[in-house]
Amino acid sequence: MIYQNATKQELEKELLDLKDRFEEYKILNMKLDMSRGKPSGEQLDLSEGLLTTVTQNEQCVTENGLDARNYGGFDGIPEIKRLFSEVLGVPADMLMIGGVSSLNLMYDTFARNMIFGAGEGMQPWGKGPIRFLCPSPGYDRHFGVSECFGAELITVPMTDEGPDMDVVESLVKTDPSIKGIWCVPKYSNPTGVTYSEETVRRLVSMPTAAPDFRIFWDNAYGIHDLYDEGDTLAEIFSLAKQYGNEDRVYEFASFAKVTYCGGSVSALAASPRNLAHAKKYLAKQFICHDKINQLRHARFFGDLEGLKAHMKKHAALLRPKFEAVIGAFERKLAVCGVGSWSRPRGGYFISLDLPEGTAKRTHALCTELGVVLTPAGATYPYGKDPHDSNLRIAPSYPTPEDLRSATEVLCLCAKIAACEKEISLRTSD
Amino acid sequence: MIYQNATKQELEKELLDLKDRFEEYKILNMKLDMSRGKPSGEQLDLSEGLLTTVTQNEQCVTENGLDARNYGGFDGIPEIKRLFSEVLGVPADMLMIGGVSSLNLMYDTFARNMIFGAGEGMQPWGKGPIRFLCPSPGYDRHFGVSECFGAELITVPMTDEGPDMDVVESLVKTDPSIKGIWCVPKYSNPTGVTYSEETVRRLVSMPTAAPDFRIFWDNAYGIHDLYDEGDTLAEIFSLAKQYGNEDRVYEFASFAKVTYCGGSVSALAASPRNLAHAKKYLAKQFICHDKINQLRHARFFGDLEGLKAHMKKHAALLRPKFEAVIGAFERKLAVCGVGSWSRPRGGYFISLDLPEGTAKRTHALCTELGVVLTPAGATYPYGKDPHDSNLRIAPSYPTPEDLRSATEVLCLCAKIAACEKEISLRTSD
Repeated sequence: MIYQNATKQELEKELLDLKDRFEEYKILNMKLDMSRGKPSGEQLDLSEGLLTTVTQNEQCVTENGLDARNYGGFDGIPEIKRLFSEVLGVPADMLMIGGVSSLNLMYDTFARNMIFGAGEGMQPWGKGPIRFLCPSPGYDRHFGVSECFGAELITVPMTDEGPDMDVVESLVKTDPSIKGIWCVPKYSNPTGVTYSEETVRRLVSMPTAAPDFRIFWDNAYGIHDLYDEGDTLAEIFSLAKQYGNEDRVYEFASFAKVTYCGGSVSALAASPRNLAHAKKYLAKQFICHDKINQLRHARFFGDLEGLKAHMKKHAALLRPKFEAVIGAFERKLAVCGVGSWSRPRGGYFISLDLPEGTAKRTHALCTELGVVLTPAGATYPYGKDPHDSNLRIAPSYPTPEDLRSATEVLCLCAKIAACEKEISLRTSD
Repeated sequence: MIYQNATKQELEKELLDLKDRFEEYKILNMKLDMSRGKPSGEQLDLSEGLLTTVTQNEQCVTENGLDARNYGGFDGIPEIKRLFSEVLGVPADMLMIGGVSSLNLMYDTFARNMIFGAGEGMQPWGKGPIRFLCPSPGYDRHFGVSECFGAELITVPMTDEGPDMDVVESLVKTDPSIKGIWCVPKYSNPTGVTYSEETVRRLVSMPTAAPDFRIFWDNAYGIHDLYDEGDTLAEIFSLAKQYGNEDRVYEFASFAKVTYCGGSVSALAASPRNLAHAKKYLAKQFICHDKINQLRHARFFGDLEGLKAHMKKHAALLRPKFEAVIGAFERKLAVCGVGSWSRPRGGYFISLDLPEGTAKRTHALCTELGVVLTPAGATYPYGKDPHDSNLRIAPSYPTPEDLRSATEVLCLCAKIAACEKEISLRTSD
């Protein structure tokens, strides 16, 4: 039964059935979490070898003869720079290696621009009011960084090729207070969209009223394919160079979802000018990052091929989970005409768009049954989804069995909310 | 021969002799480094066991059941907080665990105060001109952090009990733009001084014109004794609490010179109010630090006793080096009446005060012979020692043999510079 075409009577009967099942689930006292993009224990187990790559004193020397245990190696050891260089397709000398968290690199970059400006002689962002573009649905933690620095967040709609570039171009052309845009260009969080080459080209070539406009290019899922044939993302720096706009881009990456979220290595890629500007302050901030962990990662993977082989193991664990959720949506939601969803070829999320005005209700119903979802609205600036329709589904963490239960609950709750909405529409007619 | 009492003729003969020996050394083409407080390879070897404390999947669980490999544990795992709590003598819930670098925690804390203010409702430091107190000789990287944020650096003389508190009190009493002071309270860098209880008490009780005055208490050498009986430092928070000034203090520590400079764990201790304020922004900055490395450290040491036993091994390697340098100074410099020096009971440095106006010359002569020292002046704000007399000696890194050679060179160069000075004084008479 397609809810939109059903009569009020049909819907009321359906709702009664759904609520019966809701009560049955209630008794189960479930406790399931699909809220964050966390790898499962099985995925984490894949990197056990990382823990034994460096276990002896004499193994602590880098390929350029540096003792990784001591000070030095401020911007990273050569072997880890080479690995990130292969992953990102940028020269190793454009890289600055960070600690565990790429989010921290983004926060730091934002903070530097706030206090010191985005380049030599440029006014600090903090000196005036600033605005930041947030393609939505998008990543709540990105929006949170710009919000905490007092930027006004501007929602830009997402399309199947990335942010709606007509909107982006018209905004940045005239408003010098718009200082940048957040992007997860491959397997975007949460839509799974990979930006088209045309989108990347327009981002790096468009005129901007702000001379210090910056793209925060969070390439978080660059090697996180679910299928043998992954999406292809254009390398942004080489395109930017064609337009003389290399300084417009900061690229971020990490091995958080390659090895351990709680113990990996991150990287910032930037133009020579931007990197020199950043290093001027970074050199005041710390002496070096964890070079032993850099060594561990470099040795565990060897090269890009080793890394890719490792990612295939992740894919083998993740793919069935994504397919199980999408399959359930097809079987349980599509038949009722409830919602639409992404079918990502990589990354960590499925984006579920429910009938307008039912996401919060669905979330609340799930919570009542013990299924934790990312809060409705979280994928929009200020946590406010103008249509109250988007939910971000993170299928990676639960076991396959828990995931099946959680998805059943989610579908049931989405249907209850949709059914209630349709009934109320008919009542108000 | 005491140079100050010698005749011009005696000094000229002495200088000729010294320069002959200088030429002999020149031929050796030495390359020795006493510039930074780096542990030696032997010291780093002491922590080999750290590398094998976590080598299997099932060892990655914290005592409160958290998978250290995954997200979570934002402010640190319980076992590492407990260890830092024992080290610093503050409750575990006053701690925020950081990454490798405590300098990074200091920079971040300064940056937060610049952008967001030191507390709820307080004006960001960046909104007005600010000044910062720098007890000198002191740590160049501290001064560098405040300088890079645009603070005016004010030199405060060091005494045998810490910063000259009469000077500090009179400065902070009237000037609301003075926002804080840098302190290395135990085995101070480079003087080796441990602040007296009276000094600590005056720091936390003195009236300050700035309501947001902050003490950056870098307890870098809290457990770094050279002798069985170490100096005792008063616990600052309990004293501060007596005067209602708990919010005045940020304390920093790390295991950089306990295990690995390039792979340890750091901590920030702060009052409940300050910690809540910091966490509000830290929660935007990262999801968690390296919890596996936290586990490694907690398990390697077990508790404070384990940590102390480990530090005794460091002391056994460091003590002879400190004594060799100080012994050489006694034998070679004291007999000529050249300079005075600290005799620290812990930490990483010996502070050498040469006759006024001869530190740079001594440094240049050492450089000519291949002995690298911390640049003369580095221990003062803006790298400018008003008396051109202080050199910071870091005896930890070289082998005992290299250290002997380097110290001989240093003594020779200091004597040449002193001799030249005395001759020029007699010439200008």
